[in-house]
Formats: sequence, C-alpha cells, structure tokens
Amino acid sequence: MRIVIALGGNALLRRGEPMTPDVQRANVRLAAQALAPVAVGHEVVLSHGNGPQVGLLALQAAACQEAEPYPLDVLGAQSEGMIGYLIEQELGNLMAPAQPFATILTMVQVDPADPAFREPTKFIGPLYLHEEAASLGRAKRWSFKKDGAGWRRVVPSPAPRRIFEIRPIKWLIEKGVIVICAGGGGIPTIIDENGDLRGVEAVIDKDLAGSLLARELDADLFVMATDVAGVYLDWGSAHPQLLRDVTPQDLRTHVFPAGSMGPKVEAACRFVERTGHRAVIGAIGDIEDMVQGIAGTQVRAVRGSA
Amino acid sequence: MRIVIALGGNALLRRGEPMTPDVQRANVRLAAQALAPVAVGHEVVLSHGNGPQVGLLALQAAACQEAEPYPLDVLGAQSEGMIGYLIEQELGNLMAPAQPFATILTMVQVDPADPAFREPTKFIGPLYLHEEAASLGRAKRWSFKKDGAGWRRVVPSPAPRRIFEIRPIKWLIEKGVIVICAGGGGIPTIIDENGDLRGVEAVIDKDLAGSLLARELDADLFVMATDVAGVYLDWGSAHPQLLRDVTPQDLRTHVFPAGSMGPKVEAACRFVERTGHRAVIGAIGDIEDMVQGIAGTQVRAVRGSA
Repeated sequence: MRIVIALGGNALLRRGEPMTPDVQRANVRLAAQALAPVAVGHEVVLSHGNGPQVGLLALQAAACQEAEPYPLDVLGAQSEGMIGYLIEQELGNLMAPAQPFATILTMVQVDPADPAFREPTKFIGPLYLHEEAASLGRAKRWSFKKDGAGWRRVVPSPAPRRIFEIRPIKWLIEKGVIVICAGGGGIPTIIDENGDLRGVEAVIDKDLAGSLLARELDADLFVMATDVAGVYLDWGSAHPQLLRDVTPQDLRTHVFPAGSMGPKVEAACRFVERTGHRAVIGAIGDIEDMVQGIAGTQVRAVRGSA
Repeated sequence: MRIVIALGGNALLRRGEPMTPDVQRANVRLAAQALAPVAVGHEVVLSHGNGPQVGLLALQAAACQEAEPYPLDVLGAQSEGMIGYLIEQELGNLMAPAQPFATILTMVQVDPADPAFREPTKFIGPLYLHEEAASLGRAKRWSFKKDGAGWRRVVPSPAPRRIFEIRPIKWLIEKGVIVICAGGGGIPTIIDENGDLRGVEAVIDKDLAGSLLARELDADLFVMATDVAGVYLDWGSAHPQLLRDVTPQDLRTHVFPAGSMGPKVEAACRFVERTGHRAVIGAIGDIEDMVQGIAGTQVRAVRGSA
C-alpha cells in the first residue's frame, strides 16, 4: 500500500512540554518507534505539523534585537529542515541501513483570491497587551485578535491548491524512498502578477495539505496521527463516544471543533470523497492497528468496506 | 555536462551587509540571475554555505531566555531549509515553469576518530569576554579560542566521508531535477557505537563537502563560486597575480589562507586528482565564462587541456 501519514504537532510534542531540542528529539523517537513497523513493507510518505516550532523560531527571531523578524514562509522553510531532519534520522535508525530517505522542502500553492486572506483566523505567536498589539499592527501590518486575556497575531489559513514539488516526490517514492515532505502544511506560495512564485505570510492547515498530498500521490490510505484515539461525539461530556467506522456523509452530519478535530475530519472527508480510498484518524501509538483498519476512526466511502 | 556548483557564503551575502530577510533574498536573486543561464542545458546540482545564517540562528536562539540553545546539527538543518527555499524559489522564477526542483536535506558522515575532534579550529558565533567564555565553556563544554580582542567558540571541522542521501540525489538528477543539497557542508553525522546515525557539534567545510558531492555524482565539472575572480598568488601585495590555468601539482606548491582560499584550493585539487575532470574557482558573476573555461582559476589534470 502507498500510505500518506500526517503527524500532528501533538504527536511530536505533548501539550505543555518545554520545547527543548532534547524533548523534541525524544518525542520524534517515540513517534518513529510507532511508525517503523508501518514503514516496512509499505510505501510511506510522511508530513508533519510545525506550529509550536514556528512559534518558537518567531519568538527567538524577535528576541534578537539586531534582526528583522523573519517572515512566515522563511520560518516555515527552517522548520521543514529541522523537523524533517529529526524524523529522517530517528526513523532511519530503526530501519534497515539500506533504506533510502529524503526530506524534501515543499512549497504549496495558495490562491491570492482565497477568502482566507480577507479574514485571518489562525493564531500564531505569543500573547500581547492591547497597546503592544496595536503598535505592532501599525508597524508591521499584522492583524491581531483577542485570545483570552490578551491579543495574538492572526494570519490567513488559505486552502492548499497544488504541491510544486509533487513530481520529485513521486519519482522518489517509485524508487522506494521514504519521503518526508509538506511539513507544516507546506510553505504557502502564490503565483504573482509576473508569474513568479512568492512566499506569503500565511499558514496552510497541515491536515488539508496532507489530504491534497495523498490525493496527488494516489495514496491507498491517508492516516492522520495525533494524541487522541480518534474522532469523538460529545467530546468533553461524561460519555464521549468514539466513532469507529464512518463515511464522509456520517461525519458531515456533525460539527467538530475548528481548532482541532474539525480540519482533520474535513481532510479525511475530502480524501475519501474524491478517491474512494480509506482515511483514518487516531493516536500515533495505535498506528499499526489503524493501518490494518482495527483502531482509530476509520473513514470509508461505504461503511464497513475494506 | 553534469555540474556541481558550490555557492560560497560570500556569494550569497556580501561582507558587512546586515542579514535581514530582504537582503538575503536580494543576494540569492543576484546569484540566481548568474546561475540561470548555466542551469539551462546542463545537469546542475547546487550546494551552498550557511556560516552567517547559522551564526544568526544561534544568536537568536541564545537571545531567547526560555529556550535551550539548539545544537549545531539542528541549526544546520534549519539553515538548509531556509537557504534552499530561497534558492529554489528565486532560481525557479528564472527557469521554465516545467523545470522541476528539489531541495534535499543532507546528512554527511564524519569519522568520530577524525583528528579535528581533538583540535577544534572553526570559529562560530559572537565574541565573548574572557570570563563569559570561561563560564560558557564550563556550563556547555564548549571550546573557546582567542580571536582578536575577544574569545569565540571553536568547533571541530572534520572531513566529509559520505553523503547519506546520495542515491535520492542521483535519482532526481537523472529525472532532470535541479537539486539543492549539502547546504553548509551538510549536517555532520557520525555512526555511533550502536550503529545509529547521530548529529554532532561540528561544521564540515562546505567546499570539501561540495568536492565529495561532485565526486560521488561523477560530475564533469566542479565549480566554486565566490566573490573574487579566482585564486591569486601574492594576494594583498601591490601586484597580486590571478592564476588562470593550473594543475593540482601547481597549486600544491603554494600555501593559501586557511580560512578562505585554502579549503577551496584543496577541494579543487581533490576533485581533479581523483576524477581527472575539471574544477574552477571564481566570481559568481563570471560563472557562465567559468563553465566555458574562459574565466576564474581553471584547475585541470593537464594544464591547457579541455
């Protein structure tokens, strides 16, 4: 099987943990231990989140007075290198030495007319006081929204349209390479009025990017690995109900939280609707059983089918 | 022709310029304009320096009190993503839209028994006062050496032995992809006592890594592009003499500055001696003529040969 696996930020960094290099590497190692059995005998393509890492890189850049803040496309490129490196090395150490790996920098096309650019919704970076936010907003043309007790920068989250490096990714898979790509949803890139590619200050949802990647690679299975066992109804209630075997039509009768499970459900639905193939959402530790169809929330075109 | 081009740090950032994102991008664009005519009609593989960028990333990480300093292998991976992205996007904008590109994260094997690990020589990061250096040295087991009026961290610069991702790089070249790889000399990686790959706190010379890359790819030509017209004798005197057409034997009769031209000369000699093919050292703006054999310092197995 050809399997695209999107590793959630929470699969690489548990909530509340400090983001030291050692903690990150230890978590990547745990994820790699779960992934290794799946990577044997299947064609595996890995993508991953980068939210906490880009947040930290942005803070570090801001803390250094001498430097202009780096734009989000450049920070995204940095994080693709860093996280890709950790995954490639840690997973590689669990595979046969002859197994080839490649981490590919990935630009993803977005549409400058995407309505997301008119209404930024994705929180990034630290909390600011109102005056700080107002001043930064004027100086850098950043948008801010209230988040709890403070104000945070918001950026657009446009839909992914095309993966520019899709051909090299395909060629490498065909050679048996485990490819790591589209980290953090890929670097958001527009084609400007001159026909040039240009990075923009936005964040593409990584699950929607993973769904696009899986479709463009004609994957047999699209896996979203996170830190919960699957999609729940009545999450947060006394009796949450894990959905085990559903169709996109089933899922679309419910509303899921926008910041967490919502995009995963949407990404799964899009993949299954457009390809007829299977998607699954669940915990990274269950990934072998998820691939075999016996754990997580299995999303199929027809319920209970193979 | 298959050409490996190593872009020097000075080809991407002119001495003394501030390292803002805009300045970096503008310089990458200038380099891309010089490279584009060469990339049409040849198989081109690009590597690049990362010294100033890693220095800044390290400073930014250190300025952020909440964070542990990132080790050099992780910072190297970040810089491979960032610089590779800028080159891929800017050069891509000058090529036909159908031209495929791939920026590949690259780990390079070094030998833990390399004598460089016993005597660190490569300066990185800012100047410190003596007491600061002594304190940091104890806390982090960093080595320091005197550099002018202050003290700077020194790290080992071991010889590159093997490029772990060489097969994916070859497979992509064979498909017509312009590959960007081995940035900053590649991420220095040892195989530890358990047989695992592990990044180490070191910096591989990027010209020696480029020379190894060119040999492993069986390149017809190895180009080192920098900001001077070539290799000079009596550099700094009233009458510096540009070497135009030399053999490795010629070059080995002279001593060149360790921090700048020395590694380039050594990298050229190694490539020419082991392959019989041509190497050239010169200014990025002359690269078309360097490839044609009529600019820069041409290094051939037999002087004046093709």
